[in-house]
Amino acid sequence: MDKNFNYSSLKLGIIGGGQLGKIMSQKAKKMGFHVTILDPTFNCPAAQVSDNHIMGGFHDKKKLEQLVKETDVTTFELEHVDTSILKELFDQGYNIHPSPYVMELIQNKYEQKKLLDERGIPVPAYKDVKTKEDLAAFGFPVIQKAKLGGYDGKGVQMLKTQEEANTIALETESFIEELVDIDKELAIIVARNIEGEIKCYPVVEMLFDERVNICDSVMAPARISKEIEEKAIKISTESIKALDGVGIFGVELFLNKKGEVLVNEIAPRPHNSGHYTVEACATSQFEQIIRAVTNLPLGSTKLISPAVMVNLLGEEGYEGEPFIEGIHEALEIPELSFHFYGKSITKPFRKMGHITVLDDNIDIALEKANKAKNILKIKGSKKI
Amino acid sequence: MDKNFNYSSLKLGIIGGGQLGKIMSQKAKKMGFHVTILDPTFNCPAAQVSDNHIMGGFHDKKKLEQLVKETDVTTFELEHVDTSILKELFDQGYNIHPSPYVMELIQNKYEQKKLLDERGIPVPAYKDVKTKEDLAAFGFPVIQKAKLGGYDGKGVQMLKTQEEANTIALETESFIEELVDIDKELAIIVARNIEGEIKCYPVVEMLFDERVNICDSVMAPARISKEIEEKAIKISTESIKALDGVGIFGVELFLNKKGEVLVNEIAPRPHNSGHYTVEACATSQFEQIIRAVTNLPLGSTKLISPAVMVNLLGEEGYEGEPFIEGIHEALEIPELSFHFYGKSITKPFRKMGHITVLDDNIDIALEKANKAKNILKIKGSKKI
Repeated sequence: MDKNFNYSSLKLGIIGGGQLGKIMSQKAKKMGFHVTILDPTFNCPAAQVSDNHIMGGFHDKKKLEQLVKETDVTTFELEHVDTSILKELFDQGYNIHPSPYVMELIQNKYEQKKLLDERGIPVPAYKDVKTKEDLAAFGFPVIQKAKLGGYDGKGVQMLKTQEEANTIALETESFIEELVDIDKELAIIVARNIEGEIKCYPVVEMLFDERVNICDSVMAPARISKEIEEKAIKISTESIKALDGVGIFGVELFLNKKGEVLVNEIAPRPHNSGHYTVEACATSQFEQIIRAVTNLPLGSTKLISPAVMVNLLGEEGYEGEPFIEGIHEALEIPELSFHFYGKSITKPFRKMGHITVLDDNIDIALEKANKAKNILKIKGSKKI
Repeated sequence: MDKNFNYSSLKLGIIGGGQLGKIMSQKAKKMGFHVTILDPTFNCPAAQVSDNHIMGGFHDKKKLEQLVKETDVTTFELEHVDTSILKELFDQGYNIHPSPYVMELIQNKYEQKKLLDERGIPVPAYKDVKTKEDLAAFGFPVIQKAKLGGYDGKGVQMLKTQEEANTIALETESFIEELVDIDKELAIIVARNIEGEIKCYPVVEMLFDERVNICDSVMAPARISKEIEEKAIKISTESIKALDGVGIFGVELFLNKKGEVLVNEIAPRPHNSGHYTVEACATSQFEQIIRAVTNLPLGSTKLISPAVMVNLLGEEGYEGEPFIEGIHEALEIPELSFHFYGKSITKPFRKMGHITVLDDNIDIALEKANKAKNILKIKGSKKI
């Protein structure tokens, strides 16, 4: 897409129609672009706010081809996609960002880690699991990760003992990773455009729901020293350069108790740890990916206000049509922005929405966010 | 709509599918609501980002009735609407906000002014025009305004001499208004919800394109004294109380050279002078109207950052499919947010998009915005 392209008629394709695709589409529509969503689910969140919806799965080669051919640029809201047809189309010159080669590499968490390691980027100690015996190579406890297909705590298993290694280990291609002595889990959203321009968002702190290992809250900025911040930015930038990717990347980091920063893993798309950017940064991650993949200059990543983001997960014990409990009381909290994704069905721990709370003082933002979290409950029409 | 209503299935209807309806719909969708647009134009800006589009005009009683009956709440992006059927439906208990009675009152600029005047709110001197002779009642120059149907500089005529009064005066029901010795044109967005809670946004300064009397730029906050600011907020709040309206109201004000603040006119919907709130305030005017009309608490109107908004008007001399000139250079300006409405046709001075620029320093924000304004041109496929 050259610089004389008429942006008023730009057609964007997004693979995936969940909440990330929804907000990406809203930002693309803000800029006047035409948006087509590929997703198998009728009336998925992104389709509700877009021009066009191709109903098809992420491994449906015909539908993937249709999307790429009917649009000027194709991008992703998720990484679990068949890359074979996309690689062919990319080689024919179609605009697909990040490139399907980068997507393929990132899909395999082991290959991803190996590449970063080879480029001198600090990662936790890891080892390929070829035989059952390899599970014990670092002793116990140890983390076992599936090479392919994991997300939101799925595809990750902690093995505390040899007995667990014998009984509950994942039965799929996997690798083991040392159990990092975590001080904080950090994350950075990194943007890279077609011309290679790179911009980092502020370093944030991720807090997890321990029951299911899903990101629960994000604090921006992280409560860390300048030195740790600089280290985190440096290795995140180097990681994205190593991948040579175009788009938005969520870089998840471990800060260990020795003060070392290690790359945990990288998502090649907008990331839950960057939701806060919608309200708190000059350019949101969702607009930034649109700029990056359409050959526009990246926007400013400046933090306009400290913020805390909290995921609204479906309550345990409910499924079916969602019911939002506590919306009146929660929306009285000042500087609170309420996002609800428009999924027709809730399930326990399903990501149904999120809130972002701003405050000049990050501790007060956290207090306000926690208050809202305790008030807002996403229940369902059926008790289970 | 009581407080136990299930907001996850709320259906909102918006009368009007232009840029105001578009951004309103995007904010309603952010909160997970279902949105239906009523507008006569296929693929109008708001329909592109909404669930449902009823194609129909704003005086089509059947379509208005359909919209109201198919949704839980109906609101407006424009005031030039047939109110007769809406009044019937309102009286039957359907949720329509602002009420069609308030819309009807505001539609008539003379009645609007009279009500404010009767409530002791300062307005410019005005007089009903019953005969041609009335045009001369204040001497010349004088402003003649159509009672009905005016917007964006249309329906307003300056008469400089008796001869102009004889030749170019509007041939419609009208009134005259003294020519105010304007120091600045100010505006305030005021929100009022169903429970009567009122919140004001910051006072802003409106700058006009003198060629066509269309708002060109808006500076938030206005460069005025604390005293003027308080006066402006007081009379704006009183105006909305006088109207007894629910929703968002754009109150246009004159600051005259004596330091008096007068109400010029009131728009009963999101207003061009409040576009900056999307990037610069904790809650945008577009989300605020959704909260107001769905019986939710109003959000914080806090200014998170100073901002300047500039309208992108279709260039003179062009029409047809729009072409955005200068987008690359303009998007390099930091803290600049680009909105393009997705209208299929440009015309001279048509509102095609806008930009909002943030900066801690309002003067630098203005410089950056003016730079962008000089770079960005909305041309068309046909020279005229």
